[in-house]
Amino acid sequence: MSKRQTGRLTEQQIRGGGPREIFGTVARIHDDAVADASEATYNLLVKTYPELKFRMRESIAKSEINNILKTLDARLGETLFVKEASIKPDGGLIEVLDKLGNWRIILVSEAKHQGKDVDNVREGKLVGKENDQDLMVAGNAIERVHKNINEIRNAMLGELHFPYVVFLQGSNFATSSFEVLRPDGRAVMIRHDKGNMNRIDRVTAANYCMKINENHCRNVVLEGGERDIMLQAASIYARSDEWAREEMVGIMVQVAEISLSVLDEELPWP
Amino acid sequence: MSKRQTGRLTEQQIRGGGPREIFGTVARIHDDAVADASEATYNLLVKTYPELKFRMRESIAKSEINNILKTLDARLGETLFVKEASIKPDGGLIEVLDKLGNWRIILVSEAKHQGKDVDNVREGKLVGKENDQDLMVAGNAIERVHKNINEIRNAMLGELHFPYVVFLQGSNFATSSFEVLRPDGRAVMIRHDKGNMNRIDRVTAANYCMKINENHCRNVVLEGGERDIMLQAASIYARSDEWAREEMVGIMVQVAEISLSVLDEELPWP
Repeated sequence: MSKRQTGRLTEQQIRGGGPREIFGTVARIHDDAVADASEATYNLLVKTYPELKFRMRESIAKSEINNILKTLDARLGETLFVKEASIKPDGGLIEVLDKLGNWRIILVSEAKHQGKDVDNVREGKLVGKENDQDLMVAGNAIERVHKNINEIRNAMLGELHFPYVVFLQGSNFATSSFEVLRPDGRAVMIRHDKGNMNRIDRVTAANYCMKINENHCRNVVLEGGERDIMLQAASIYARSDEWAREEMVGIMVQVAEISLSVLDEELPWP
Repeated sequence: MSKRQTGRLTEQQIRGGGPREIFGTVARIHDDAVADASEATYNLLVKTYPELKFRMRESIAKSEINNILKTLDARLGETLFVKEASIKPDGGLIEVLDKLGNWRIILVSEAKHQGKDVDNVREGKLVGKENDQDLMVAGNAIERVHKNINEIRNAMLGELHFPYVVFLQGSNFATSSFEVLRPDGRAVMIRHDKGNMNRIDRVTAANYCMKINENHCRNVVLEGGERDIMLQAASIYARSDEWAREEMVGIMVQVAEISLSVLDEELPWP
């Protein structure tokens, strides 16, 4: 998403609605950006691997995940209350057709925006109930990110890769502390290590607190214990600044290509 | 929690605040109830197994989980932004001291309330923006439940049991459809199979869509594939009606005792 585009939409929203809607709009633009990036990734894959057949879709039904679970064990995948329930990651799912005619997931992407403190400070806007604070106490909505991760973990329980990418952006995901200047010249510190600001820790259970901003698509297998443990770790990309569409595409292509390698090791491509 | 107690607090809230606060209060009472039930479970365990040493605590630090992860593999457990971050399940954690002097988790409990439709209909209260609907469209806050489940999964990655119990209550967790009468005699249907009402499906990824209202404390191991897959499934107890404290204690004791058996198989108690 271009800076220009964000600016324009934000202005429209200021005229139309107010801070709540602006927040929603920025989050939605970020969602759209990851969907665009996912589509660009799909197109790149189609061009780069003309011998393979890819497909892209917006959602996967819970009933389909249940069928996958059932083939692993009859006890799994038997509960479903809303028959038409489905999982819709922001960037959809990209799949490849394997030699046996099965569609295999090679990329799932989500984007989450939380924390508008940098923009607020730059605009000189005070926040909070009394409109007297520089910074907003961070919320917990980001914890919902684990739900879709767990759904796709189930869909890929039998796989040796987990190509789930989450792009986190906003002041709640800063990876270092930095100062932002208000229009009046006063500096406000965005802290990456304070509980009222940073929310990356609320996501890292999904990658076993391995490094963030790293590709964990190939499953880690812990050997040496009583039994092997295979980890399905999300690749968590986090920072305060906006992720550019091109950056996202770069990361997503990398993850998708690891998926293709892992699948190739299992069942070589023709 | 007694009916009387809920009634009294709800009344106070009506005088003081309004529907938002009532909702918060009921959710909080449910949290308190599970904390009480957890404490009662702890006391029962202490009495029943005088030869074992138990402890109960409100939270586990993320740094502690990271240390557990690091002992499994040096790549894990290395990311933490807010040093003092901790996980606080509503009912806390109960642990037992094993023969080697290690505290082992035997019970973790959470309680989530979502959906006040039954009370609203009974009271003849219409809801929605225009106050003209019988039923409230269900929210998605429940998806946050996966975060703590994933944290405790990590803390117990090396264990053969996963004693995580979630009590879901409220109209969004109805397991069958039923009618509720308004004061004017008109019946309103609470549907368990509609996407605008039921939210159980948003939680079941945490038990691989195995049966709900069942104890999954002993990990299922899927054998026969290229490698064994060990599942850490939350025990999800869901219904529209309130869980009584005694019912919760009954379930929690059952789960804790499975934990004790699994640990006994690994390292027999004296």
